Amino acid sequence: MKGKVMKIAVSGKGGVGKTTFSAFLIRTFNEMGRHVLAIDADPDANLGAALGIFDAHTIVPISEMKELIFERTEVGQGGIGGFFKMNPRVDDLPDALSVKFDNIKLMRLGGIKKGGGGCICPESTLLKALITHIVLARNEVVIMDMEAGIEHLGRATARAVDKLIVVVEPGRRSIETAHHIRKLAADIHMRDIALIGNKIRGPEDEIFLRRNLPDLNFLGFIPYDDALIEADLKSICPFDVDTPAKSIVRKVVAELFDRKQ
Amino acid sequence: MKGKVMKIAVSGKGGVGKTTFSAFLIRTFNEMGRHVLAIDADPDANLGAALGIFDAHTIVPISEMKELIFERTEVGQGGIGGFFKMNPRVDDLPDALSVKFDNIKLMRLGGIKKGGGGCICPESTLLKALITHIVLARNEVVIMDMEAGIEHLGRATARAVDKLIVVVEPGRRSIETAHHIRKLAADIHMRDIALIGNKIRGPEDEIFLRRNLPDLNFLGFIPYDDALIEADLKSICPFDVDTPAKSIVRKVVAELFDRKQ
Repeated sequence: MKGKVMKIAVSGKGGVGKTTFSAFLIRTFNEMGRHVLAIDADPDANLGAALGIFDAHTIVPISEMKELIFERTEVGQGGIGGFFKMNPRVDDLPDALSVKFDNIKLMRLGGIKKGGGGCICPESTLLKALITHIVLARNEVVIMDMEAGIEHLGRATARAVDKLIVVVEPGRRSIETAHHIRKLAADIHMRDIALIGNKIRGPEDEIFLRRNLPDLNFLGFIPYDDALIEADLKSICPFDVDTPAKSIVRKVVAELFDRKQ
Repeated sequence: MKGKVMKIAVSGKGGVGKTTFSAFLIRTFNEMGRHVLAIDADPDANLGAALGIFDAHTIVPISEMKELIFERTEVGQGGIGGFFKMNPRVDDLPDALSVKFDNIKLMRLGGIKKGGGGCICPESTLLKALITHIVLARNEVVIMDMEAGIEHLGRATARAVDKLIVVVEPGRRSIETAHHIRKLAADIHMRDIALIGNKIRGPEDEIFLRRNLPDLNFLGFIPYDDALIEADLKSICPFDVDTPAKSIVRKVVAELFDRKQ
């Protein structure tokens, strides 16, 4: 069944609730008995904590594993300023470097260079090789929590990503970021984009978002919920709280599967 | 009077209100008759729009000015993979490339590589040279709206920054980011850090923040305010709205001057 290996990337402006939504997606797939590879690719977030993994802050992001990066890209062997391997071995990393939680495997990638281009370094080479492997070759559901951009993705991976979900909140900059992400996605021929409206205070917020993003599909709208803020303050996993977000995300997942199969 | 050339860097997790706070600081200094150089160094934000500069989205970030970067770092002349100038000329850029608004000059820098290190490219070389110049040599108030980190700053500039203000909201990840920024700041011997609490829903939020960041000084607490969200949705500059944030930021500025002089 093809639905089993669904690959989903989540992006959006910082602070819109991208990581919380990703955690809800992951936990929902997990509830359904699926194996999920959860990828934390946003250095400004903490997907592990949002998933309820207690010691998530102790996980070292791969971008900071200097020895591994040097070993795999063979940097040291070429000397500083020398060449390095552009196709490092990465297929063992998802199992070796992930933290397990139920049927979820969590990997922290860390930061990758934003924009600019023209800068190739061993860290980003390893991360990109790893993501290509994960998206193209892993036989499980993959959910990637990304920065306000899709810098981790390239042309090779774009086609294999089933859905790019952009989380937006009622706020102009969140909408600008959504437009920007859509442009970046179009550049790499990635067209299956959809939106989630978050922190919705009432029907006006939904109307505002629809009006400002008229030609993109909304998968759902999640209400503003003090209970989620309180859960966060008390270090309770948001998925373990009674919130309408849960059933909304369940519906989103069901629809994603319906369309895929 | 030394207070005239105060240099302030603002950082914090994405979405906490860093850019809105920076805009309030800038507009407050402007109200006081100061000349301000406003630096938008967060590719995920839009300081211009927050300041009320109507066509702010048309400003091209310097990190995307390929020709300028190539010309100043002399990349083209060395050929691809060749050397480039590590001390490009930048002193003319703040006046040549800023957008004026009253006594405010706004520059958009764009993204710089996060974390990792070891990666030196023409874009980041130019941006770092520019920031060093701005912090060390410009004779006006400088306010920098930065990403969730202080990657734009180095040892040379750290001593010249009068205050690093970290904006936090009631939320665990915002606190984690504050601790992370403090660590990065300590690495470059930058010790004058203070906090602003934002989106405060009541006394419990203030207590929560103080308890979780016990050894840092809070300059002030700004209440959660629907009026600021509404202003944003209606494309009204937040500083032109009747909100308690205004008088709180005025007090913050007055205290910064008192301590400096």
